[in-house]
Amino acid sequence: MTSIHDLDTPAVTVDLDVVERNIARAQDQLARHGIGNRPHIKTHKIPALAKMQIEAGAIGITCQKIGEVEVFADAGVADDILLTFNILGEAKTERLVPLIRRLKRLAVVLDNETVARGLSEAARRHDVDIRFLIECDAGGGRNGVQTPQEALDLAQAAMRMPRMQFEGLMTYPNRLPGTRHFLERSLQLLGGAGIPVPVVSGGGTPAIADVGEMPMLTEHRAGTYIYNDRMMVAAGAATWDDCAMRIRATIVSRPTDTRAVLDTGSKVLTSDLRSVEGYGRIVEYPEAVIANLSEEHGVVDLSHSPERPKVGEVVHVIPNHCCVVTNMMDEVYGVRNGVVEVVWRVAARGKVR
Amino acid sequence: MTSIHDLDTPAVTVDLDVVERNIARAQDQLARHGIGNRPHIKTHKIPALAKMQIEAGAIGITCQKIGEVEVFADAGVADDILLTFNILGEAKTERLVPLIRRLKRLAVVLDNETVARGLSEAARRHDVDIRFLIECDAGGGRNGVQTPQEALDLAQAAMRMPRMQFEGLMTYPNRLPGTRHFLERSLQLLGGAGIPVPVVSGGGTPAIADVGEMPMLTEHRAGTYIYNDRMMVAAGAATWDDCAMRIRATIVSRPTDTRAVLDTGSKVLTSDLRSVEGYGRIVEYPEAVIANLSEEHGVVDLSHSPERPKVGEVVHVIPNHCCVVTNMMDEVYGVRNGVVEVVWRVAARGKVR
Repeated sequence: MTSIHDLDTPAVTVDLDVVERNIARAQDQLARHGIGNRPHIKTHKIPALAKMQIEAGAIGITCQKIGEVEVFADAGVADDILLTFNILGEAKTERLVPLIRRLKRLAVVLDNETVARGLSEAARRHDVDIRFLIECDAGGGRNGVQTPQEALDLAQAAMRMPRMQFEGLMTYPNRLPGTRHFLERSLQLLGGAGIPVPVVSGGGTPAIADVGEMPMLTEHRAGTYIYNDRMMVAAGAATWDDCAMRIRATIVSRPTDTRAVLDTGSKVLTSDLRSVEGYGRIVEYPEAVIANLSEEHGVVDLSHSPERPKVGEVVHVIPNHCCVVTNMMDEVYGVRNGVVEVVWRVAARGKVR
Repeated sequence: MTSIHDLDTPAVTVDLDVVERNIARAQDQLARHGIGNRPHIKTHKIPALAKMQIEAGAIGITCQKIGEVEVFADAGVADDILLTFNILGEAKTERLVPLIRRLKRLAVVLDNETVARGLSEAARRHDVDIRFLIECDAGGGRNGVQTPQEALDLAQAAMRMPRMQFEGLMTYPNRLPGTRHFLERSLQLLGGAGIPVPVVSGGGTPAIADVGEMPMLTEHRAGTYIYNDRMMVAAGAATWDDCAMRIRATIVSRPTDTRAVLDTGSKVLTSDLRSVEGYGRIVEYPEAVIANLSEEHGVVDLSHSPERPKVGEVVHVIPNHCCVVTNMMDEVYGVRNGVVEVVWRVAARGKVR
């Protein structure tokens, strides 16, 4: 039996009670509104956790890279995967085709004709069908068509290409009321053109609470909810008790009365700030601010902390953004009541292609 | 023969001509001033590149984690390693001891008595000697004793502990004139106490240019110089021609006239801003700004770019901070004149302990 106290630092743990509760709560909320749960695996990158999500009732999973689809298909935990990234170039379409053949359903998204043409050509070459959703930018400011009219035009253009099967609309993140209006108007236009829209896919952990106001959704993609983090607490989407991930870190130096240094820098916490102060919350010293990171050092400002740690003390950090921490680690420890129950390899870590 | 055009994106390449030139230039500059070159391997994390640095004349290497020392000791490329991080706790000292036995010289740094005591106890238990430098904070604001008097006091306290061999002083980064004054005064105090100081170790790539003003240095630790990056160009320590690293990325979306999206987000470029605008320089579109990153998306603002890329175009990004990009990648491609000459596994990637 390994206690978490036996884990050398830095180490990333997730509390299994909290994870199970988070999975159940999101599943219940989406089920209550008749919306399919399609969790985004980017947060954990671990097949065993996707399996827990599926067993709790998820209809499938979301991946963002073909390399992630390969890992989760190999693990056999999901046979219905949505790949939410424009796939371009033969190197990628040649990897996509065998995955389409292996899985019960693999759908992709697209937001322009160049991507549609490349997919269609690959599909024709290999005699498969490509199921696709149109990505809509309803204010997220990344990929996506900019207007409902563009969504209709692109759907029609892509549907005219060989082997392309239109399945619906996808957006990220849901933002009320803009996202609702965008999707409603797009559905009107598609309906007016006689095009059935079996799938409308929303996304984002904060939006889980609002899905009742998005009745057109058939499914929702959220990732962070399984662990939660400071960003989710700041957004009002989680409490500290809902945060499952901790970075165990050691105070290695106390150079001045107001400065402590952790053995945990950007190589674990990453430089993601995401509109919160500092690079993480130290559970034992909540008034301390992780003010600066270099790769291996976390420099802590103790000015406002009445209690101050000693050299050698181990503390626990709730990260700003749990998804990016996952990607830094080769393994994550699943713990319950202070005991390590399981060590997971982060199987889809670093899948950049 | 693989052309770089055959590499699917995102991919990280380093230009071997530039790398060789960078290695030679730093080596020449340090040799001219009689200062040993002890490159920090955190920038590349690849034994073959450390070998090139040693063959060019480096006296040894610098690592920051025991896991990095293990990788480079296993690779057999260096027998003189400085580990520049406070080592605390039995899990780590038990890994340190066999490395001390294997290598011709492995020295550590420390900045407090707790670390010194833990090292001494491990050394006594295992019947080895620990060579150590005192880390001095001459303005860097991370680890380090705060005054020359503290440097003397800690050196004397640690020297009184069994098996502890004082070897000198270490600081990072060199900043004139503060670092020079700190080291001069510390050397005076140590000299006054009759304590020989065989090693004085400075650090940082920008400081290579100034080493002539630091005559007390016996060695210098720089990492970034082998690749260089936007941060080094901003600091005046490199030109664009000295930047060896490129991230090959594809334009996957052009949602608006002024927005492009790369298939390369914080999972490759990281969120390190480091006082430059945007998250990287697109070589082909230098007026474009990589304004926002999510994990897989790089959102580019083209407002000030007279030329604008098409979907499907491949571009090349010079990162803000090359060291952190290295840590995101499983492999790096060494290229020359557009041809892939070697594929290196990033052997010490993700060694957080």
